[in-house]
Amino acid sequence: MGSEILGLSIIQTFSPRDYMIIKVESVIAITKTKYQEVIIADLKGYGRALVLDGLIQSTEVDEYIYHESLVHPVMVTHPNPERVLIIGGGEGATLREVLKYNTVRKVTMVDIDGELIELCKKYLKSYHQGAFDDPRAEVLIMDGKEYVKKTQEKFNIVILDLTDPYGPEISKALYSQEFYEKIYKILKDDGLMVTQAGSSFYFEKVYDYVLNNVRQVFPVVVEYNVWIPSFGYACNFIIGSKKYNPKTLNINEVEERLNKRGVRGKLRFYSATTHISLMYLPIYRA
Amino acid sequence: MGSEILGLSIIQTFSPRDYMIIKVESVIAITKTKYQEVIIADLKGYGRALVLDGLIQSTEVDEYIYHESLVHPVMVTHPNPERVLIIGGGEGATLREVLKYNTVRKVTMVDIDGELIELCKKYLKSYHQGAFDDPRAEVLIMDGKEYVKKTQEKFNIVILDLTDPYGPEISKALYSQEFYEKIYKILKDDGLMVTQAGSSFYFEKVYDYVLNNVRQVFPVVVEYNVWIPSFGYACNFIIGSKKYNPKTLNINEVEERLNKRGVRGKLRFYSATTHISLMYLPIYRA
Amino acid sequence: MGSEILGLSIIQTFSPRDYMIIKVESVIAITKTKYQEVIIADLKGYGRALVLDGLIQSTEVDEYIYHESLVHPVMVTHPNPERVLIIGGGEGATLREVLKYNTVRKVTMVDIDGELIELCKKYLKSYHQGAFDDPRAEVLIMDGKEYVKKTQEKFNIVILDLTDPYGPEISKALYSQEFYEKIYKILKDDGLMVTQAGSSFYFEKVYDYVLNNVRQVFPVVVEYNVWIPSFGYACNFIIGSKKYNPKTLNINEVEERLNKRGVRGKLRFYSATTHISLMYLPIYRA
Amino acid sequence: MGSEILGLSIIQTFSPRDYMIIKVESVIAITKTKYQEVIIADLKGYGRALVLDGLIQSTEVDEYIYHESLVHPVMVTHPNPERVLIIGGGEGATLREVLKYNTVRKVTMVDIDGELIELCKKYLKSYHQGAFDDPRAEVLIMDGKEYVKKTQEKFNIVILDLTDPYGPEISKALYSQEFYEKIYKILKDDGLMVTQAGSSFYFEKVYDYVLNNVRQVFPVVVEYNVWIPSFGYACNFIIGSKKYNPKTLNINEVEERLNKRGVRGKLRFYSATTHISLMYLPIYRA
Repeated sequence: MGSEILGLSIIQTFSPRDYMIIKVESVIAITKTKYQEVIIADLKGYGRALVLDGLIQSTEVDEYIYHESLVHPVMVTHPNPERVLIIGGGEGATLREVLKYNTVRKVTMVDIDGELIELCKKYLKSYHQGAFDDPRAEVLIMDGKEYVKKTQEKFNIVILDLTDPYGPEISKALYSQEFYEKIYKILKDDGLMVTQAGSSFYFEKVYDYVLNNVRQVFPVVVEYNVWIPSFGYACNFIIGSKKYNPKTLNINEVEERLNKRGVRGKLRFYSATTHISLMYLPIYRA
Repeated sequence: MGSEILGLSIIQTFSPRDYMIIKVESVIAITKTKYQEVIIADLKGYGRALVLDGLIQSTEVDEYIYHESLVHPVMVTHPNPERVLIIGGGEGATLREVLKYNTVRKVTMVDIDGELIELCKKYLKSYHQGAFDDPRAEVLIMDGKEYVKKTQEKFNIVILDLTDPYGPEISKALYSQEFYEKIYKILKDDGLMVTQAGSSFYFEKVYDYVLNNVRQVFPVVVEYNVWIPSFGYACNFIIGSKKYNPKTLNINEVEERLNKRGVRGKLRFYSATTHISLMYLPIYRA
Repeated sequence: MGSEILGLSIIQTFSPRDYMIIKVESVIAITKTKYQEVIIADLKGYGRALVLDGLIQSTEVDEYIYHESLVHPVMVTHPNPERVLIIGGGEGATLREVLKYNTVRKVTMVDIDGELIELCKKYLKSYHQGAFDDPRAEVLIMDGKEYVKKTQEKFNIVILDLTDPYGPEISKALYSQEFYEKIYKILKDDGLMVTQAGSSFYFEKVYDYVLNNVRQVFPVVVEYNVWIPSFGYACNFIIGSKKYNPKTLNINEVEERLNKRGVRGKLRFYSATTHISLMYLPIYRA
Repeated sequence: MGSEILGLSIIQTFSPRDYMIIKVESVIAITKTKYQEVIIADLKGYGRALVLDGLIQSTEVDEYIYHESLVHPVMVTHPNPERVLIIGGGEGATLREVLKYNTVRKVTMVDIDGELIELCKKYLKSYHQGAFDDPRAEVLIMDGKEYVKKTQEKFNIVILDLTDPYGPEISKALYSQEFYEKIYKILKDDGLMVTQAGSSFYFEKVYDYVLNNVRQVFPVVVEYNVWIPSFGYACNFIIGSKKYNPKTLNINEVEERLNKRGVRGKLRFYSATTHISLMYLPIYRA
């Protein structure tokens, strides 16, 4: 009997029509918060994982690839990132990456789902690694749209770590031109934002909609993509910048910045050569 | 997006090559006992379920079909079932069915897996419905083969409620001719035994092996089968009897015995007409 | 690697939420007719199969169980079935079963999908076994609703061999009270009709709707159900009769009729005892 | 009902434990050659695809990513690739890519499976685009191991386009150190070889075995990896070179070579910047 596929599994889509079947070793938590269905489970071969509305957000074996790719290109491109805003990012791993920079004085993380944050704090310790307790970190449970509308602060970097633009309803407004205009306003003149943007290969129209929204607002727009194994696709990222362009940095400059800012030796995927590679890799389109 | 199949599922085989995908609403327990992998979960559309080594043993919505079909044909056929032995049956539902008979003075249930019994007691209350606490019930945690070898008692009825003969290793010896010979010895002269026997349609060779083993030992052998939805097949049952034949009972006799023995009104699937139907239904073979 | 599940498969639902995965050995035809998607394929363990709109209609190893269960209870119950109408039944296997009766003078089979009939004639020879060429058979490619409205003939038996009432749109109107009223009108005073009715266990509401529609029209209504392995459930059948009740026949009467009408020795599942069993088996409900 | 997943599908593994479900629109051919099970099918969202022993080898929408990534890094690195050997590559797409170079005087393609080649010629025209008919192409149906042992010719480039090293038995010997030694012997002093090497992320041990085998034989070894959507992973490639190192080329050099050799404007994924990106991208490991 084909015993390998037997038992508890996560079935997730990774395109408008394809599915992945991933074996579950144990289920740590399964609940519906006010905003989404949350599963925290140990997946065979992937370790502890966060699954929101049936879609894997992160797994222990490859979350570093996603979070390093999201955070470091903008952080390195900025000449002196001191003030950072994260919207989403419930696992605390984006926060963890930002806090690696000794230039950072304060990071505000805004997530709408307080129940999710509590679950992540409790069950995803290998992700946040105590980042929530860093004195430079401020965590606010509120709607990112509201925060962006009301805050009086200005940021060097805004990082949007959201569920997919074609995924659950909860995130859709955070990929709109209107929202990017608000991000633009709360960025300093040297500011950059970055958003994950799902798959341009499998959801080309939605991706182009998001890309176009960023282009309507920011003078400098840079795309890159990175294969994330547990997602089943190369995840796209879009940078919107007021001034600095990550494509103009050379290897030595990236290396020097990582060193000076205390990040050297703390990364597993991103590096100076990875930066160049990501900036040169073609964007996947079907 | 095909959201219906998304998320947590149980994938089980029901034949040497086919699979079923069943949605999981929540996982109550997932553990490995000394003998088997145990999952207790709430399955969409099926309610609370027990899954051993990846195969559904019972679900809340159809366990009564299985347990009534296993227990009542032999219990009704015997003229006065007082002393009953159950081997396996961790859920406590077979015990529950046997205890419905006011003729029963004592039931001994022998299960090898004490950890499983504890999980069932705790999480499958709608199954056992307190049967474990009935003063006529005795539960022994030991190997059924050992019990049968050593017991000095004689029984009217022996019920074998085991995992499939082609399933996990744990149960295989309990489908052998050698084992049936031991059962024969501990049955009184008017005794009957019944065993579930998996699927004759999908595992014809193994079924025939079991059937032949019973035939080598008992003068009266009766087969019947009943579709159990969550199994994905019609489950076969084989009765071995020293004297009485369930096929010779007519509707009135079955009805009268159910009434006299206090079982009337306590059944959902089995009845006098069901008895006749099961005795007449062809055995499925591929 | 879990090679057993690899390769070409049919994935079908058998409930509002569950799926079956069945291995495909070869694909004989895959096409869209004017009315439905048709796949004819050889399935591992099931042989040549007909799949309409993703749902298995029949497979070589178990089609006889379905077709015998559909046809014989009404054919045996009628005292002298001479004139029979089949609506649907593209495989030709229902026709094959009806033609086994030497009492039958003419069978009209009406199917809306001429392309499907041609595919079945060509690729499902083990199903129809030449039934389409029997001089007593008349095959009309037209909408069953139209035929029933316009025909001037009267029938002893009408057999509705349709896709599920909760399945593709194509068949829904043929499960309505309005349609059964038309069937009633074209039946002789001694007439019976039978329809397959999908799964009462998994689609109880739709089943009850169909059952109620039959009850609104016919004085005698009898339900029965039979597990069909490749369907993943016990298939329900509903008989509507003007006069005769299949439940009142005893074993000897059924046997005698099968013998006299030349059907003896030509059946694999249905028999006199099977008739009794089906009439007594409880209807599955969740 | 979750209609999206219904119907004909390909289920493939992409790791030791995970599965992908991909919808099939039509099956063009399904057969067993002397060496492997071949399915040619139109997959929803992927177009015409070749599936060997249950694993997708190429699909119409992403085969160019795989074939360009396999062929061009070595072809560009060599100062004047005139004589090329391909082992495997039944689709004819690797041949197609090699023939884009005006420096190439002769390409020999050796594939063990003549039946497969015939199927590809007939049904994968968008892949080979007539490459088999190019006067510079020679196609030999024979065991690659035999050819390599017996040929008297010397090559600038050898391209190994095989099924995975952890996949079907047929290819395993072509990933051994012994085989690479033979490749070394038939390469000129300026020669390079490249092999696809499956997934280092999901099959790290096998990958390291292959990598080590190449390292035992070649003084210059370069790894790179590229996400291939229909494979479900970033496909690894390993270059073994006697002299030239693809990492030392800069953007201008790659661009100039593509231009001079007539390849400019004929590529969709590979380019001078892609070359740099691939050389800098980290190798995925779990």
